[in-house]
Amino acid sequence: MAKYFDVCLEDEFFGENSWEKAESKMIKTAVETVLKKSKLSVSDINFLFSGDLLNQCISTSFGIRDFEIPFLGIFGACSTFVEGILLGAFLLDSGAVDNIITSTSSHFCSAEKQFRFPLELGNQRPPTAQWTVTGSAATVLSRNGNGPFVTHVTPGKIVDKGIKDANNMGSAMAPAAADTILTHLKDTNRKPSYYDAIVTGDLGYVGKDIIVDLCSSEGINIASNYDDCGVLIFDKNAQDTHSGGSGCGCCGTVFSGYFFNKLRNKEIKKMLLVATGALMNSTSSQQGETIPGIAHAISIEL
Amino acid sequence: MAKYFDVCLEDEFFGENSWEKAESKMIKTAVETVLKKSKLSVSDINFLFSGDLLNQCISTSFGIRDFEIPFLGIFGACSTFVEGILLGAFLLDSGAVDNIITSTSSHFCSAEKQFRFPLELGNQRPPTAQWTVTGSAATVLSRNGNGPFVTHVTPGKIVDKGIKDANNMGSAMAPAAADTILTHLKDTNRKPSYYDAIVTGDLGYVGKDIIVDLCSSEGINIASNYDDCGVLIFDKNAQDTHSGGSGCGCCGTVFSGYFFNKLRNKEIKKMLLVATGALMNSTSSQQGETIPGIAHAISIEL
Repeated sequence: MAKYFDVCLEDEFFGENSWEKAESKMIKTAVETVLKKSKLSVSDINFLFSGDLLNQCISTSFGIRDFEIPFLGIFGACSTFVEGILLGAFLLDSGAVDNIITSTSSHFCSAEKQFRFPLELGNQRPPTAQWTVTGSAATVLSRNGNGPFVTHVTPGKIVDKGIKDANNMGSAMAPAAADTILTHLKDTNRKPSYYDAIVTGDLGYVGKDIIVDLCSSEGINIASNYDDCGVLIFDKNAQDTHSGGSGCGCCGTVFSGYFFNKLRNKEIKKMLLVATGALMNSTSSQQGETIPGIAHAISIEL
Repeated sequence: MAKYFDVCLEDEFFGENSWEKAESKMIKTAVETVLKKSKLSVSDINFLFSGDLLNQCISTSFGIRDFEIPFLGIFGACSTFVEGILLGAFLLDSGAVDNIITSTSSHFCSAEKQFRFPLELGNQRPPTAQWTVTGSAATVLSRNGNGPFVTHVTPGKIVDKGIKDANNMGSAMAPAAADTILTHLKDTNRKPSYYDAIVTGDLGYVGKDIIVDLCSSEGINIASNYDDCGVLIFDKNAQDTHSGGSGCGCCGTVFSGYFFNKLRNKEIKKMLLVATGALMNSTSSQQGETIPGIAHAISIEL
């Protein structure tokens, strides 16, 4: 995917002395880059929606603190990228707002350290584990322009099927993603074939198989035009990440780099983007809790 | 304040075996209570906005997972209560939504353990420290009804004046609150005297003095009708919490219990509610970072 990204980092520190500071700099760079590409200045932006995986979303707050833009923090775990766009679309629809930026990030090292084990421990990872994407994405939503447009939003409900394994997030999140996709298709009276692409955020290889089965058991076949950003982002042979990529940055970078270009080039014209999140932390896992999942969907059409 | 609250707990566990689970149960109880008082059922609610102070907002996700309501997670630290209402007001204004619930919580024990020290350590607290309120609040926003109404919203920008002391949150957040109040008064062309009450969320005694001074230095005198939920919630003589209360639940409970009743009884008719948040975590403090502040304001009028 590297060739689709605006900026690629040489290492995980990005010139900073901690992974957390590197992640903040990634968000800052993503926002600066999207402003530049959009030919907009900070004063053109009415709101900034952002959130990330770190405790109290510090990548965001330190990353964007120098921008003087009214800021609304959001937390949807790895569903944050789409949650921001969904909320931004509502605010634009109210007529009171002209331009909104959304951003998000994740970082393999800061996330792994926080959610699982110290990286220095070199723990072996089970085959269901996913690799948190070190990446950040930012978007501009505007009342002006020629699209692509957000035409429909389907916010998700929490779905918790009792999965407790923090190394099997795909299984924990797939039922929520299936619920949101089925709700979306029912509400809009659309078939999966309406879309050129139905894409989930970070179910990975394990979750991708599960969601196809779950939809199929409800009589809906999504397999022919469905894919997952966590499956797409890494090369399975050259980069063995086990079940694929994950994190807010996974959906964010694969959509903003790869799919957004396809939309702009009219290679695809109708897309359903479904970002998935696992709403847990290390304390809840230690206290024996399950992993509640959520998924938010947006239709993006030319 | 106890007499203004719908539910008062006997102890900090609320029948659960951990503080985190108690806090989740508090959110669940607050949402159930507001549904009952509003004579609405879950199926009447289009969206639920919620967030809290725990890492990855787990009080929220475990507290609300049994409600089948589309959920949008937000994080504004202690400003979360007003952020939810602000976003809910925008969504209602779009015309696509009828009823929204917002909720938030904080818990002294779960917050102290997470942000500062183990409670068992019995650390001495400095005079500038505030006491996280163990409380939860939920609101229903509706397109129908006789008010009070949210008439204006002023979302805040991040303001960071370089305060690093996590036991002095009032000083860290006061500049953001002053910025939001001054922006609000300028944008609406109102004087402080327009309002019967201007109320901040959790600046405490230290922050309350600072914000009055900061506004005064800009030629705006808010002292005569200004107060702070962190100052109001505890009895200074009977409950020595040093600089007062803090936490998402501080603004949430004092507004929803005390001020909302005053609005309903027409004792006050115009109120500016300004919730304040400190956008840091324990890692950012350990890495020597400052504490970025934010404050969101809403006008509530009959």
